[in-house]
Amino acid sequence: MENGAPAWKFRGNGGLSAATVITVRGVLYELMANLNADDGRTVVPLGHGDPSSFPCFRTAPAAEDAVVEALRSGKFNCYGPTVGILPARRAIADYLSCDLPYKLSPDDVNLTLGCKQAIEAILTVLACPGANILLPRPGFPCYDAFAKHSHLETRYFDLLPDKGWEVDLKGVEDLADESTVAMVIINPGNPCGSVYSYQHLKKVAETARKLGIMVIADEVYGHLAFGDTPFVPMGVFGSIAPVLTLGSISKRWIVPGWRLGWLVTNDPNGFLIDTGVLKSLKGFLDISSDPPTFIQAAVPHILEKTNDDFFSKIICILREAADICYEKIQEIPCVTCPKKPEGGMFVMVKLNLSLLEGIKDDQEFCLKLAKEESVIVLPAVGMKNWLRITFAIDPSSLEDGLKRIKAFYGRHAKK
Amino acid sequence: MENGAPAWKFRGNGGLSAATVITVRGVLYELMANLNADDGRTVVPLGHGDPSSFPCFRTAPAAEDAVVEALRSGKFNCYGPTVGILPARRAIADYLSCDLPYKLSPDDVNLTLGCKQAIEAILTVLACPGANILLPRPGFPCYDAFAKHSHLETRYFDLLPDKGWEVDLKGVEDLADESTVAMVIINPGNPCGSVYSYQHLKKVAETARKLGIMVIADEVYGHLAFGDTPFVPMGVFGSIAPVLTLGSISKRWIVPGWRLGWLVTNDPNGFLIDTGVLKSLKGFLDISSDPPTFIQAAVPHILEKTNDDFFSKIICILREAADICYEKIQEIPCVTCPKKPEGGMFVMVKLNLSLLEGIKDDQEFCLKLAKEESVIVLPAVGMKNWLRITFAIDPSSLEDGLKRIKAFYGRHAKK
Repeated sequence: MENGAPAWKFRGNGGLSAATVITVRGVLYELMANLNADDGRTVVPLGHGDPSSFPCFRTAPAAEDAVVEALRSGKFNCYGPTVGILPARRAIADYLSCDLPYKLSPDDVNLTLGCKQAIEAILTVLACPGANILLPRPGFPCYDAFAKHSHLETRYFDLLPDKGWEVDLKGVEDLADESTVAMVIINPGNPCGSVYSYQHLKKVAETARKLGIMVIADEVYGHLAFGDTPFVPMGVFGSIAPVLTLGSISKRWIVPGWRLGWLVTNDPNGFLIDTGVLKSLKGFLDISSDPPTFIQAAVPHILEKTNDDFFSKIICILREAADICYEKIQEIPCVTCPKKPEGGMFVMVKLNLSLLEGIKDDQEFCLKLAKEESVIVLPAVGMKNWLRITFAIDPSSLEDGLKRIKAFYGRHAKK
Repeated sequence: MENGAPAWKFRGNGGLSAATVITVRGVLYELMANLNADDGRTVVPLGHGDPSSFPCFRTAPAAEDAVVEALRSGKFNCYGPTVGILPARRAIADYLSCDLPYKLSPDDVNLTLGCKQAIEAILTVLACPGANILLPRPGFPCYDAFAKHSHLETRYFDLLPDKGWEVDLKGVEDLADESTVAMVIINPGNPCGSVYSYQHLKKVAETARKLGIMVIADEVYGHLAFGDTPFVPMGVFGSIAPVLTLGSISKRWIVPGWRLGWLVTNDPNGFLIDTGVLKSLKGFLDISSDPPTFIQAAVPHILEKTNDDFFSKIICILREAADICYEKIQEIPCVTCPKKPEGGMFVMVKLNLSLLEGIKDDQEFCLKLAKEESVIVLPAVGMKNWLRITFAIDPSSLEDGLKRIKAFYGRHAKK
């Protein structure tokens, strides 16, 4: 071309760039870029909830077998239907109904690409002009990213560290106005490790009803409860206020890379139909990508054939890891943990910067820790100078990681 | 609750409902709801490009083996990185580079959930305020749906039936203005069955350069060419104008349900970096769901180990099916096909309503055909009274389906 390059007119709109949207992955990559390549030690990943690479967290053989069987049948190389194939939806409806006072139908279940697409779906369809949504602080940054993407306003209610990270319900009432459409509950908690009681969840539902809003119940860590409080699904209170439950096999089966989740309406009174939410959801799913069909086809066997021993083993390891984490953190003066985790894969700890020399905030703490000790820990999003730490790794690696944090403190402690 | 139901404040925004967005799936479901349950005959699916359920289109054993092997290793149950795992990106870069005058790097390759997510990604990041994009007519409705979702204006250039469905390049120049950012080319064509020549594609690139816009090259049907014109990837002209190539294993390997696609920058001059398009793309992929990690891990073996015999067999069946389709259509007076398909899985036929009694348009033709003959055919989106028919099914079923369309004509022909 004789004139050199033309003036290209296309531009990236930058709407989802790191400058405007915080994601766990984005922060993780930044920290990992800061690792010291000359450190001969293994990196200890305390940053995100994915223990699948540790042999003790290998998924159940029945789950693997189910996927292989579906694939080998040759019957599921095809496109799937919008909401997911019927046997998978039926199996999930049955699985969830065990813990509910009413029975879900397959029509209440929509398959999604992990919980992430379920979050995207519901935030997209709720984004009417002027609407706002109430999110927990601390929370999971994915909600903020998709809300921003959909131009849905976000408002933050506090989880109370002194009350086992329960929801500040008074705060929720103060935040809500005529344009508030929903509140998000993550239970078992990410990143707090809390498990809410039946009574607390009931109060959440009653508050939602009073405010005329729906509850989005993120239960991706469902059943991963190992303390005194049993896991109660929010759907139990679906007749008080409509509940949209988000779940997945990612965490309980330790297969986050399989990308199989669900979005389930717990709404015996049909309000989500009356208000057009369900119809909009189906519209969204109609243009979205589905989970691979053969993985969908494996769902009934995954849910039915996974041995209780597998679940018990995972719960045992998580309990042991949470114990180690809580104890060892008490030996590190610059961090305090207000509440021993009872579920999920994370715990929140407060950073006391006054005990440290030359570290100005949580960001710098995490960067230097990655560089000097090859330990990845993330700042908690929305709560300055708190850290979110996962204990869901092999217990001996966890001990090693916490020992390194202690050594890091030793070197950086104020004299 | 004593007061009955409160006034719920949440509403679905309806932005992606069937009223505003046409999708292949949406139309398919509508037609399938219209089937006659009492018709003892098998439904003949001539509506969408997924022949995977026919035994003759079963995928290559090597592809199945690769997925099973990756799954059984237990190493890929984890979350994957934003852009996809490196061995998969490297394998795709090598696979595509075979047909290019330069070598792609793994950094040029982003894995996506089939081609659909690649379409979503690029339309999302190009949607700057006021921008518009040029789409082919007839085309693939997915582009319209995602453009609407992103508030990106769409304008339509014609594909010319009398010129083998080539792009009306004069029309493209007339449509474009200062706010035009890209044009979409689907080659091999969906739904036209066309395969563009080297010379035509070069002209497309030169037109794009003249207009200062990029080319989005949808090559999901790449290599599925069985006529006289060989398949040439648009990336060959990446130094004339930047090309974003969309591809997938869905069609060539007949596994649309595996959801493994790619979005590749063919841009040796780096204009997509300079303009921030690439950075915005990474931002989008950072919050999106990835293809399941074990399927990503299977990609190198899928690409390297699939036998040429498999590809030849598929091409043979498609050629035979296209021949049958073209011949049998000539025996049905109310439809005419301007061009025998040379690639892909679809052909466009024009409906002559003046020969039919009591059928007012393409919609009614398709609905009655589904009801009376259990044959699913879709109206072409954007071209009134044209139909898009897939020939990519088992040849004997195809003959059966076309025979039923002929019988349908016989009953509805004007006396």
